[in-house]
Amino acid sequence: MKLTERTRIRNHPERAVPEETEEILSQGMVAHLGFIQDGIPFVIPFSYHYDADTPDLLYLHGSVRSRALKHMASGAPVCITVTLTDGLVYSRKAMNHSMNYRCATVFGVAREITDEAEKFDLFDKMVQRYFPGRTVGHDYNSPASGGLGATALVEVKIAEWNAKARRGNPTGPDDDKPDALGSAGVIDFREL
Amino acid sequence: MKLTERTRIRNHPERAVPEETEEILSQGMVAHLGFIQDGIPFVIPFSYHYDADTPDLLYLHGSVRSRALKHMASGAPVCITVTLTDGLVYSRKAMNHSMNYRCATVFGVAREITDEAEKFDLFDKMVQRYFPGRTVGHDYNSPASGGLGATALVEVKIAEWNAKARRGNPTGPDDDKPDALGSAGVIDFREL
Repeated sequence: MKLTERTRIRNHPERAVPEETEEILSQGMVAHLGFIQDGIPFVIPFSYHYDADTPDLLYLHGSVRSRALKHMASGAPVCITVTLTDGLVYSRKAMNHSMNYRCATVFGVAREITDEAEKFDLFDKMVQRYFPGRTVGHDYNSPASGGLGATALVEVKIAEWNAKARRGNPTGPDDDKPDALGSAGVIDFREL
Repeated sequence: MKLTERTRIRNHPERAVPEETEEILSQGMVAHLGFIQDGIPFVIPFSYHYDADTPDLLYLHGSVRSRALKHMASGAPVCITVTLTDGLVYSRKAMNHSMNYRCATVFGVAREITDEAEKFDLFDKMVQRYFPGRTVGHDYNSPASGGLGATALVEVKIAEWNAKARRGNPTGPDDDKPDALGSAGVIDFREL
């Protein structure tokens, strides 16, 4: 049960798009990890791996010295948010300026992956997610050939999730009137 | 004292760029807010306002119904991270693929701004940060003319901060050798 009271979207509930969670996680470039240490929240950006074929699993990697990864691997609860900024929305009224975005938020617990073969395989898939045109043995050497060094890989088992999106145009009543003061529209980053 | 033990960068300390914190916060588009509720970390994306003329203050806005903003305004500790993804780094070795980024992380406590004139002024500045070419009264109506509706504005007083950046090229020993297997380089998003 991934949609829970914790992940229920209270503000603009019509923007909830739980069915898009896997797509957002598949497309994202940066995951913001939230964890708690000494009663204080921390938010740290990570590159990550996600594959909709195993929708419950999200992978973060980093140095074995990383405080965030160590903390995660201890089984502490974490929250991870992936945000895609799709556009900037301008309007005839200051308050109706907005942003078009999609974001997915997941909650879960993590474990460190220590099996070398599993790590090699996941790192290779992660390279291919970020660089879909590149192939092992032709464009780059396999992770197995160079060793993993001081790189740790952590698997987050997703227990709860939801996603939210704002799409479309300005929402003000005057935004469709060409004779009203000012201008309105969308700067769509995906078309730039 | 903004650089503290909490904000000390442990992994790749040579990537610490505290002197760039204000610039990163000024340039960012999305702030990821971390807060704690019932012992669980939450990470939520926000548009925000930041002005290097008042470097200790960062503003988030949202619905008065927002759980995150309500929680913040109660004085609970928060962490906010702004990340700029500058490029993707590809290498001749799987493990040397990387990302060029800049990120700033701040810690502080918040209060809600209730003075209407102060809110109008800050919302107007926020519109101008996101849409630098637009001017009140010409391109859009002032926030004062339309009222603030159900929009809350929260001011975070920054107590601690730091910033981190990765720049440049692949780091592998073969990455400069044109006769070695594969290819290496940077996809610089700022040049696209």
